[in-house]
Amino acid sequence: MNNALDRGSSLHAVSFTKLGKHIVRMTPDGRLHALDVLAALGVRHIENVQAYLAEHGVSCGFYDFGEDHGEETVAWQDVTLLAFALKTTDAKRWRERAQAMLTGYLSGDVTLAAEIAERNPDSERRRWLSARLESAEARKRFMSTVAKHGGEGDVFRLVSSLSNRSVLNMNSAAFRRERGVRDTRDGMTAAELMRLTYLETASAQAIEAHAARGNDEILALHRKNVDNERKVWATALGQAS
Amino acid sequence: MNNALDRGSSLHAVSFTKLGKHIVRMTPDGRLHALDVLAALGVRHIENVQAYLAEHGVSCGFYDFGEDHGEETVAWQDVTLLAFALKTTDAKRWRERAQAMLTGYLSGDVTLAAEIAERNPDSERRRWLSARLESAEARKRFMSTVAKHGGEGDVFRLVSSLSNRSVLNMNSAAFRRERGVRDTRDGMTAAELMRLTYLETASAQAIEAHAARGNDEILALHRKNVDNERKVWATALGQAS
Repeated sequence: MNNALDRGSSLHAVSFTKLGKHIVRMTPDGRLHALDVLAALGVRHIENVQAYLAEHGVSCGFYDFGEDHGEETVAWQDVTLLAFALKTTDAKRWRERAQAMLTGYLSGDVTLAAEIAERNPDSERRRWLSARLESAEARKRFMSTVAKHGGEGDVFRLVSSLSNRSVLNMNSAAFRRERGVRDTRDGMTAAELMRLTYLETASAQAIEAHAARGNDEILALHRKNVDNERKVWATALGQAS
Repeated sequence: MNNALDRGSSLHAVSFTKLGKHIVRMTPDGRLHALDVLAALGVRHIENVQAYLAEHGVSCGFYDFGEDHGEETVAWQDVTLLAFALKTTDAKRWRERAQAMLTGYLSGDVTLAAEIAERNPDSERRRWLSARLESAEARKRFMSTVAKHGGEGDVFRLVSSLSNRSVLNMNSAAFRRERGVRDTRDGMTAAELMRLTYLETASAQAIEAHAARGNDEILALHRKNVDNERKVWATALGQAS
């Protein structure tokens, strides 16, 4: 495996990922060396990789990992397909892990969340996750401040929609459609998430500092913050404000 | 469901969680109302809940949700067991989600990580995740600074082990045994993670500020930081230093 890297690295970018204890070669666009994947799933000595994959409903791509010829690649989704199709002990172990993951998901297991995040090779995406978590916490604190200061009924929906509209330049439903996501925050960039965190933290603080009471005072303070934050950002983007 | 809450909330603490679109009652120790779970999995009109669960290998507990008698409860793990045992469309949908989760896990899907974190009702645990992610990023930046300043070979293991030993008061292997975790960071508290982040960020900065070159200079600076940080913490804990 190191040989493949040494010989090919200057010509053919290859990175590595792990499947259990197995090291798997990866292409720059995140596809995986099919034979490495099969080995990790306990399948060896396959003569015709492409035919073997096709038998299991997986169609492969090709990439030159440094052997001067294209070698079969599969996507992460295909790894799951194979894990659920193959009869090997390794495949069975991954099916059991998938089952355990459902429990981890349902119970909100933060160590599972950390493990997933650390599998992402892109530090920008990991940073995005931190921004996403931050913004969700800031929203929760903001809502609890609104409630503590006598906000009730529609005000929770109104303040959120003011924040979202200001940062996204449209309402959440239109934004979700435009970016093709089910969850508004999933479609936001790290910068948009940061603005949201900043804005709602500032508004929570303003509500406390001014000892605001009731929907009208809360909304007035938040509106003022929204306007001012938008001016900062317009300047940051080099627009006249 | 609201009735149960209204009538019972003062006597019997009940919180709520979601299984897909279904709302499920939850006990203070995180067990779930069995009939709510079964309804979410597409099973209704069960006469003997306990017998039905037993048939599927699930043993239940009991909790008074406000109906003045104990009602059957199950754990999150049992939800997964049922999802994998039942023939309903809803159960099948959860099995498909478990399969998709494996793909999300393998590919390091940060939106899945966020979704999991947000299912955790405990804000302390969500904060722990942020501290965990921060410390992993700080470690990566530290290591890359060490490499940029001519660190090589053993130094990477040595600096990490200095940080860990200083914060944990023992080596990582002993620590993992003591707290019963496979991954060192999983066993650390948010405060321990924060100390690690702080320490390694400070050392990376020191290496740059002093333009250190090579293993010896890097280790000397990190050792100095480790000693000083330990003094801060000893004082923070009210110990003589």
